[in-house]
Amino acid sequence: MEEQKTRQKICSAAVSLFTTKGFSGTSVREIAKKAKVNPALISYYFDGKQGLLESLMGSFFEGYLEKLETAYKLSDSLPLRHCLHKAIWDLLVYQQENNHLARFVYRETTLDTTLTREIMTIYLRKEKFYWQKLFDKGFKMGEFKKQAVDLTIVQLKGMIMMPFMNPQYLQEIFNMSPSEHYFAKRYGMRVLDWIDERFCRKEVLQAQQTAEVIHFRATP
Amino acid sequence: MEEQKTRQKICSAAVSLFTTKGFSGTSVREIAKKAKVNPALISYYFDGKQGLLESLMGSFFEGYLEKLETAYKLSDSLPLRHCLHKAIWDLLVYQQENNHLARFVYRETTLDTTLTREIMTIYLRKEKFYWQKLFDKGFKMGEFKKQAVDLTIVQLKGMIMMPFMNPQYLQEIFNMSPSEHYFAKRYGMRVLDWIDERFCRKEVLQAQQTAEVIHFRATP
Repeated sequence: MEEQKTRQKICSAAVSLFTTKGFSGTSVREIAKKAKVNPALISYYFDGKQGLLESLMGSFFEGYLEKLETAYKLSDSLPLRHCLHKAIWDLLVYQQENNHLARFVYRETTLDTTLTREIMTIYLRKEKFYWQKLFDKGFKMGEFKKQAVDLTIVQLKGMIMMPFMNPQYLQEIFNMSPSEHYFAKRYGMRVLDWIDERFCRKEVLQAQQTAEVIHFRATP
Repeated sequence: MEEQKTRQKICSAAVSLFTTKGFSGTSVREIAKKAKVNPALISYYFDGKQGLLESLMGSFFEGYLEKLETAYKLSDSLPLRHCLHKAIWDLLVYQQENNHLARFVYRETTLDTTLTREIMTIYLRKEKFYWQKLFDKGFKMGEFKKQAVDLTIVQLKGMIMMPFMNPQYLQEIFNMSPSEHYFAKRYGMRVLDWIDERFCRKEVLQAQQTAEVIHFRATP
């Protein structure tokens, strides 16, 4: 219990320092000072700064993949459109809840390092697998219009990551705060609209939307 | 002439080193060595490493804005759909032609620095202005379906930047090379499709597409 709390304090301090000063600009001593722990504990729990970085990135992508897995598991019982919507929505909220970490992790993965290559092999390959499966199932069920999806996943990833990678840009230029709840809601709706326009067969979409309206009317 | 060549050599060396080792991980001495110039010239022409960074980022965004300005100027004589298509297309090609610089510049603008804030004030505000103008003109002319465009610009920026910020991800996971010509073409088409689906009134789109077919048929 105590260990968990200490680890958590170290991680929060590290994310905050890495975000503002960059990974190489931050020392173990500074992290320990900000977390109010003995520097030796950072070696003990994380095997130093590099180990801390690996742990942070790993835990971010574990949580990220979990959202996609959950949405995929629902695809046996729900329309694929709903599963895709859920995946996108949950990922936006996840990034929002971990906005400092998300920004830092995304910036790190643009660097050409051994760690980045490992992250791709372990997590990003799996991510592509899940998106692909969700789309393929939608084609097979006749819910989606057939199309190649590789470039679609790239577009989708761009839309999902952008606001959380560039929060200052959104703040400064558009007066939007990606970390606020209403943002995920408004922005998410636009991404879901894109999914509907791009993938859904018109008749399927209309049938689903009618069902939704009836459903909403049925609830008091 | 000689000065121009030396400056160019210094810039190329700097971009290549900043991309692989990061800005703070690169020394003036290393840049001079790679560029095969006397280190004193870097102070002389750029006022040191920070000045070099400012010059690189400034010149990237100058060229970037130029593409948007050109497309905007055409909006007096061409349909707005064509102007938007041209802007997106030219920006993709521009990033491709400057792919190392683009990747480095985008990564830098995710950091919270004085320079980033200046870049936003000088360039990114203007960028938003041009996108907004292009869309507004399309609404006014009845070519586009009316809608709020702030979040659209964020989505569009995400799609445009993504591949050039994460070339390794595209290479490793999708076997695509953002720096190759066919990529901009294939990816660009998807982004233009999105513009058409999202903005164009059906009847306007059909009329334009018919005109295009006739035009293509008329040329031998």
